[in-house]
Amino acid sequence: MSYTIQEIAEALGAKALGAIDLKIDSVAEPAEATASQLALAMKPEFAAQIAAGQARAAMLWEGADWESLGLEAAILAPRPRFALAGLSAMMDPGQGWATGIHPSAVVDPAAELADDVSVGPLAVICAGARIGAGTVIGPHCFVGADCVIGEGGFLREGVRIGARVRIGARFTAQPGAVIGGDGFSFVTPEVSGVERARETLGDQGDVQKQSYARIHSLGSVTIGDDVEIGVNACVDRGTVRDTRIGNGTKLDNLVQVGHNVVVGNDTLLCGQVGIGGSTVIGNNVVLAGQTGVGDNLFIGDNAITGGGTKVLANIPAGRVMLGYPAMKMESQMEVYKGLRRLKRLFADVAELKKTVSNDAESN
Amino acid sequence: MSYTIQEIAEALGAKALGAIDLKIDSVAEPAEATASQLALAMKPEFAAQIAAGQARAAMLWEGADWESLGLEAAILAPRPRFALAGLSAMMDPGQGWATGIHPSAVVDPAAELADDVSVGPLAVICAGARIGAGTVIGPHCFVGADCVIGEGGFLREGVRIGARVRIGARFTAQPGAVIGGDGFSFVTPEVSGVERARETLGDQGDVQKQSYARIHSLGSVTIGDDVEIGVNACVDRGTVRDTRIGNGTKLDNLVQVGHNVVVGNDTLLCGQVGIGGSTVIGNNVVLAGQTGVGDNLFIGDNAITGGGTKVLANIPAGRVMLGYPAMKMESQMEVYKGLRRLKRLFADVAELKKTVSNDAESN
Amino acid sequence: MSYTIQEIAEALGAKALGAIDLKIDSVAEPAEATASQLALAMKPEFAAQIAAGQARAAMLWEGADWESLGLEAAILAPRPRFALAGLSAMMDPGQGWATGIHPSAVVDPAAELADDVSVGPLAVICAGARIGAGTVIGPHCFVGADCVIGEGGFLREGVRIGARVRIGARFTAQPGAVIGGDGFSFVTPEVSGVERARETLGDQGDVQKQSYARIHSLGSVTIGDDVEIGVNACVDRGTVRDTRIGNGTKLDNLVQVGHNVVVGNDTLLCGQVGIGGSTVIGNNVVLAGQTGVGDNLFIGDNAITGGGTKVLANIPAGRVMLGYPAMKMESQMEVYKGLRRLKRLFADVAELKKTVSNDAESN
Repeated sequence: MSYTIQEIAEALGAKALGAIDLKIDSVAEPAEATASQLALAMKPEFAAQIAAGQARAAMLWEGADWESLGLEAAILAPRPRFALAGLSAMMDPGQGWATGIHPSAVVDPAAELADDVSVGPLAVICAGARIGAGTVIGPHCFVGADCVIGEGGFLREGVRIGARVRIGARFTAQPGAVIGGDGFSFVTPEVSGVERARETLGDQGDVQKQSYARIHSLGSVTIGDDVEIGVNACVDRGTVRDTRIGNGTKLDNLVQVGHNVVVGNDTLLCGQVGIGGSTVIGNNVVLAGQTGVGDNLFIGDNAITGGGTKVLANIPAGRVMLGYPAMKMESQMEVYKGLRRLKRLFADVAELKKTVSNDAESN
Repeated sequence: MSYTIQEIAEALGAKALGAIDLKIDSVAEPAEATASQLALAMKPEFAAQIAAGQARAAMLWEGADWESLGLEAAILAPRPRFALAGLSAMMDPGQGWATGIHPSAVVDPAAELADDVSVGPLAVICAGARIGAGTVIGPHCFVGADCVIGEGGFLREGVRIGARVRIGARFTAQPGAVIGGDGFSFVTPEVSGVERARETLGDQGDVQKQSYARIHSLGSVTIGDDVEIGVNACVDRGTVRDTRIGNGTKLDNLVQVGHNVVVGNDTLLCGQVGIGGSTVIGNNVVLAGQTGVGDNLFIGDNAITGGGTKVLANIPAGRVMLGYPAMKMESQMEVYKGLRRLKRLFADVAELKKTVSNDAESN
Repeated sequence: MSYTIQEIAEALGAKALGAIDLKIDSVAEPAEATASQLALAMKPEFAAQIAAGQARAAMLWEGADWESLGLEAAILAPRPRFALAGLSAMMDPGQGWATGIHPSAVVDPAAELADDVSVGPLAVICAGARIGAGTVIGPHCFVGADCVIGEGGFLREGVRIGARVRIGARFTAQPGAVIGGDGFSFVTPEVSGVERARETLGDQGDVQKQSYARIHSLGSVTIGDDVEIGVNACVDRGTVRDTRIGNGTKLDNLVQVGHNVVVGNDTLLCGQVGIGGSTVIGNNVVLAGQTGVGDNLFIGDNAITGGGTKVLANIPAGRVMLGYPAMKMESQMEVYKGLRRLKRLFADVAELKKTVSNDAESN
């Protein structure tokens, strides 16, 4: 598939300049671009590399002096990273899977598939599942009993959806993602040391040996539209009601969302984030990689955490947090500065003690 | 399936009050309950929501004044969360899988399956595997050569068990769990920088470029009775002897247990916990989410960690730990308080230095 | 398979002593060894356990007085842990899989498999894939379109390789590993709060509600020779160019490598390590378990991190780091010492303030 510079610019709502009939078949970093590729140099610091490659056209930042870079054509975008979203969708070669239902797939006759659903080799679709128009179920995928998956979904290889999970339109799931595992919910016959330590903040009292009884997950998972779930990430079923993920929310690889959790709309959970059971997370939240959030907490809309933040208490809306335990980012930065000067502080205080004690003696 | 209030109460060892012949077909949160559902309001703070729903019966805390809540019947339990374990087992609709051995499964003729074992579509069971009565092997599961799985097990979709793993009775594994991957064990021909840095606590000396040789895992994994393993969690094989998980122990999603680790009985490893190789963890331990434990450490019975704790040294029995590095929870709380006042402390010391220096001059 | 003491010693380049014709069929820890097993007692502290077992021969450290330990034969190695690598390779019983292409596997006729490639039951190999001599594709594995996998590879059950991934020789992948999931790359139409908070280190300014557009991953993944990937670990595709893993590098279980990342040669990423997008990691680096590295960072050759380290800034070559945020290990140790004495420091300063203030008054 190839496109002219003009076609690309029109699709992106960007400006086409120069030889706008030039044909492009794919994109590349500037230094590696061939003559039929569009070089991506979306910040001035990448411009110098254009000369190192063979590109005749490039996507550049707004206001770039493209002719001085030796190009024959250019696409200028006011927010090039946003333009890249549309451009990458046009250029995506995809996974190359065949359409249709592969004969090796095991599709229960009581499943309802819209006419143009594709099912890959060795996938399993259980009775009562309903799958919307245009959705692609990849190789080795599993779709459980009575699941609903909306239209336009794309499940990469080996995705697993447990029974009764309901998912909206345009769902994307990366390989090995699991929706609808059982919640991790166990209870001892008598009050446990953990329950006491939580109340006392550290004292578990007299401990008895106890075994755990399992609380089954009777709820399922409800997922909105335009959600993406990363590689080997998991969202557990709720105990009584469903665990819920809102519209437009994206989970990265190896993310864990516990039972009963509610995640709002347009929220990003980055790689290896973990959310404890029954926690509520608002809209437009961004939790950076390896952030951990305890159970039964609340994180307000537009909150942000930095990488590795451990959240042990509620976070109000709009707050930017960092560290373990999570503090406002500015406060945490102050703490970090203090820690680096801590050794010096001990020395200062020791010195002061000596001086003051000498003063006292000399008085 | 439906039950009377009396049948439920009897099964749970709880008290049935009021219209004990009322039939219940499932459970719900109080505000969402229909007339045929049992509302769960196990703490006084949830009682107010009963009126918002349609429930005619509820499970309540011991001593609750159920009649004043407008209910026709009630179940009272001294520890309602424990009662929920039994109740949820009665009400669990399960995954809806067919019983028997699916024709698409690949079962080696030299595997021994008890008469009532079920094997889902596209599962693989290797030669020499022995699977106990009533165990359900889900779709896409893999059971390796010479594995033993006890009776009453339930393997959700896509669980993988490597060769020679031995597992007790009533094993539960969530989708994508892996038992018996190879240990992460590599060695350089000469002493490495890491080995030196561990000895010196930070100095790796003169570093040479070296490649790694692989130490194969000759051991396997031995797992006791009543163990549950979470979604995409993994337990690696031992190097010479088996990695071991005791009876009644539960691992949550994305937990990693390294080679040679020994975990005791009735221990909980919560979401994304990681245990380094050869570490020994006692009985009735609880490691909260994202806890990390280094290799070759010892964690005593009844120890507890808070979320995100990083354990770099042994933990004695019964200790409640928090933070990075792990400290006793009380000490860590003191540290956190101190950190929040650290900026002030620097200011105080600066002020003191000025005062003392002025005093010295004025003397 | 059994070997004489002499054969083993020759294979390992070690010394055989005593009854060198003694036959050994496997290895064991000293206390559990039977008469036909080689006891492994590679440090003096394990020697005492030899008497508790039945071993007639042992692998011991250089200079060990093997006869006084009651043994008939011994193998002495100058670096016994390195010798164990070779020994364990000889003794590995493997997974016991049949060779050849299982009839239930779905192999596209347009895939090119070298003559002695094995493909396990229910594996899928797509069109255009090329697989080198001697490589074993395990049960339930997926190899995407136009992938290249070199010779001598071993893919355990359920490994998934996305389209166009290129992998060198002697590749090992543990169960559930995923190479070539799509990168986690989303962009808002206007500048987002996260972008502003990163610039200001904490202030996200006026926040507007925005939804995300997806940036597709047009690049793939290139992996060198002698690489191993752990259970359920994942390496994402690059956005424009490939994500790259060098020769001899090993990733442990549940490791996450983001899009565009470059990892050098002979580097170890231990359990649950996470690497943010576009970060560059050098050669001979070791990142201990649960280390997290932010996006767009640089970690120099021979750098080492301790367990749980959170890397928020570049690390120069050769540096040994620990903590959150990462500091030089020595500095972090000083900080930890300071934190434990922090309460005391506050008390000292309070005391000083009182003394100085009294002095001032008495003056």
